[in-house]
Amino acid sequence: MNSRMIAQILGKVLCTVSLLLLLPAVTALLYHESPFPFLITILICAALGGGLLLLKPKNTKIYAREGFVCVGLSWLCISALGALPFVLSGDIPNYVNALFETASGFTTTGASILTDVEALSQSSLFWRSFTHWIGGMGVLVFIMAVMPMSGSRSIHIMRAEVPGPVVGKLVPSARKTAGILYLIYILLTLAEIVLLLCGGMTLYDALIHAFGTAGTGGFSNRAMSVGYYQSAYIDGVITVFMVLFGINFNLYFLILVGKAREALRSEELRVYLILVAAGMLIIALNILPLYGSFGESLRYSSFQVGSIISTTGFSTADFDKWPELSRWILVLFMFTGSCAGSTCGGLKMSRIILLVKSVRKELWQQQHPHGVRVVRLEGKSVPEGTLHTTLVFAVCYIGILLLGTLLVSLDGYDLVTNFTGTLACISNIGPGLSLVGPTGSFAHFSVFSKLILAFAMLLGRLEIFPLLLLFSPSVWRKQ
Amino acid sequence: MNSRMIAQILGKVLCTVSLLLLLPAVTALLYHESPFPFLITILICAALGGGLLLLKPKNTKIYAREGFVCVGLSWLCISALGALPFVLSGDIPNYVNALFETASGFTTTGASILTDVEALSQSSLFWRSFTHWIGGMGVLVFIMAVMPMSGSRSIHIMRAEVPGPVVGKLVPSARKTAGILYLIYILLTLAEIVLLLCGGMTLYDALIHAFGTAGTGGFSNRAMSVGYYQSAYIDGVITVFMVLFGINFNLYFLILVGKAREALRSEELRVYLILVAAGMLIIALNILPLYGSFGESLRYSSFQVGSIISTTGFSTADFDKWPELSRWILVLFMFTGSCAGSTCGGLKMSRIILLVKSVRKELWQQQHPHGVRVVRLEGKSVPEGTLHTTLVFAVCYIGILLLGTLLVSLDGYDLVTNFTGTLACISNIGPGLSLVGPTGSFAHFSVFSKLILAFAMLLGRLEIFPLLLLFSPSVWRKQ
Repeated sequence: MNSRMIAQILGKVLCTVSLLLLLPAVTALLYHESPFPFLITILICAALGGGLLLLKPKNTKIYAREGFVCVGLSWLCISALGALPFVLSGDIPNYVNALFETASGFTTTGASILTDVEALSQSSLFWRSFTHWIGGMGVLVFIMAVMPMSGSRSIHIMRAEVPGPVVGKLVPSARKTAGILYLIYILLTLAEIVLLLCGGMTLYDALIHAFGTAGTGGFSNRAMSVGYYQSAYIDGVITVFMVLFGINFNLYFLILVGKAREALRSEELRVYLILVAAGMLIIALNILPLYGSFGESLRYSSFQVGSIISTTGFSTADFDKWPELSRWILVLFMFTGSCAGSTCGGLKMSRIILLVKSVRKELWQQQHPHGVRVVRLEGKSVPEGTLHTTLVFAVCYIGILLLGTLLVSLDGYDLVTNFTGTLACISNIGPGLSLVGPTGSFAHFSVFSKLILAFAMLLGRLEIFPLLLLFSPSVWRKQ
Repeated sequence: MNSRMIAQILGKVLCTVSLLLLLPAVTALLYHESPFPFLITILICAALGGGLLLLKPKNTKIYAREGFVCVGLSWLCISALGALPFVLSGDIPNYVNALFETASGFTTTGASILTDVEALSQSSLFWRSFTHWIGGMGVLVFIMAVMPMSGSRSIHIMRAEVPGPVVGKLVPSARKTAGILYLIYILLTLAEIVLLLCGGMTLYDALIHAFGTAGTGGFSNRAMSVGYYQSAYIDGVITVFMVLFGINFNLYFLILVGKAREALRSEELRVYLILVAAGMLIIALNILPLYGSFGESLRYSSFQVGSIISTTGFSTADFDKWPELSRWILVLFMFTGSCAGSTCGGLKMSRIILLVKSVRKELWQQQHPHGVRVVRLEGKSVPEGTLHTTLVFAVCYIGILLLGTLLVSLDGYDLVTNFTGTLACISNIGPGLSLVGPTGSFAHFSVFSKLILAFAMLLGRLEIFPLLLLFSPSVWRKQ
């Protein structure tokens, strides 16, 4: 294990976070709030980060193992330190609550322990939503994009942080790839901000909701979430952008370089859009009696489907009160999430496709025990190892969901709350059903459950393995 | 596809069922009830079976494919025909209800559409429970045990019908293996009957409950299930036998041939017994406030844990009213089931062990992308293919559960009813939670949902692939 190189990268992460904290500090000044909670955190991050940077690595080589450890440690650290401003400002005085909220922010979950979100200071609310934007594309990918990363192996870090079964480079250089991804991310965010401003939102609210959409997070500065604005235009804009941020960013790159046709041929994109459309339509028909006209019911079903499948978690309606069919479709979307290589959580469309193809392959194999059949995705043959890893990942995901629900059950809340709450955390959605539905919160859970759920969010965001490896003794053993 | 050989085997199955139907016919005579519903069904089965037997096969070779098709078709046919006596006697006038009840019987699920079980005739109740006993070890395995099966490839049939990731022969001959399995099955059933008679049960009740336990089915002739007897002795006997019938029958064979020590070293057995003991203890502590003394709460927790993990489904308490932790532990046991090679349903312990080991292997593999690591079970290395199939099986299981719940949601009942009801059917348990809890029934579901759930039971009992293959066009294509 190249510990010094890990320290080096962790140091860069902490310094970057201290720089990013300048934004909420400026917000505090603009709103005549105290900037000290942010300034103190900036100092702590800079001191820790600076200290780590002093440990010069002997060699800059890192492997898959180091990539996982870097990413796992970085995310634990930024969650732990990012919680400080909430505690220092007194907005969330309890540290575990603040940690839950920050982990929920960085992992773009959007699950909240706040029962009165509008009571928070503007700077805290800004920081809370800004963590979504940072976490969406990933802090290490950000660092790769803006700083020279010594060593040619930084792809291992990208693989560990960017979601999806296969992470490749768009261009030969990993650094340039990271830069392109962030450029697309920034452009799309800006586009949404402009469109929200056109709908009459204030700049502050537009920033908050664009951060929440771009990172597919879902924190709002309004207790009623996007429902507060009562505007079909704003609902529409955010619905479209939620769906857009659920698409693999590689496809936007293809469009940018003039290969739009190739992008539109993407198997994952097609399955995603078909599921989105089917979900919107079926739910619209199912909730028609609640909303009177098909237009209205389509408006609300589209928003909620876009919000859940992209794992954002904004809401304009209390879908917990919807008929069982609609509720279960939303639960299914909590499992799937949207495309790999986007900012969303869940299992990801490409994994769902690979799982379905694995089942079909197995049925074929049962008939032809000695035959060989290759699974293809996006026209390329998928190595057996990738298929196998995808299957293990899915099983692990379900296992963590079932065990997480068990631990949360200790609090004694109802089964639907425990199950969908854990699912909403591991899939980085935010709201679940019942007590953790769109009008509820995670405030009532015990400290133990909050820690379990925060860990589930990190497991979901980092796609399990980096974080599990961090707690595996063999990683730390000398070789 | 050797269709004539499949017809031959199907013919034998139907003739066997017509013979087995003589037992409830005799019961009808003993209880002065009409034997005609059974006699008519016997004639229909014998006529159809005899007709199929006339189609002499040109060659007797069968392969994995024929094994799957035989088993899938046989189980569909016996469910469809076995339902006739209920309809003809007027005990369950609606055919879909009767089909649900019969599929539930043969698959040893024990889910019922009856709201007043004690209103049924004694002969119908006998047949209903006897289907558990037939289905437990499997009708094709029974035929293999008692009839000469031409061709040396009958192991393919056994593999398709006996549950578990790997099905091997105990002795070189598949026929003798089947005979040994049935011998153990009969001996254990007789032992339970004797012990129940000692507890003061009538012979009829003892038979019914022994059939339900041996097949891990769970149909009772009492509305209150085993709770009716209010006897700690009977609870204890049935608890022990439910746990015993959840153990791999291969281990009993090892004990019979004097290799008890080897049997006790079984990894699957140990994991199973640890989980059973842990579940009983944790739930006993969790429900202590409801039952006053630890002895009482252990009695009820033990029975319910034994009943659910062995996928039997008898009950002595309304566990739907228990605290959330206990309820969720029972839901987890609905997933696991007990050992492979037993009469139980669910994923099976050995698969759970393989899944956990696959995850550990994957974590190792992530660190050593080019390393090779072998997974071992019961001291033997497990081929990659078996691991892969186990993973696909688990994913398929979860997928069917989630989609089944979706279809059942159309009826509009609550999420817990739909989810645990579907799980209880695919895992062949019987009761779930909420409306389908131990005091509820499946009566309220629509015809569509009942058909879906009956199909889920068959998928669970035959471990998915044989039944899915039956509906796969490629199986029927000429090669």
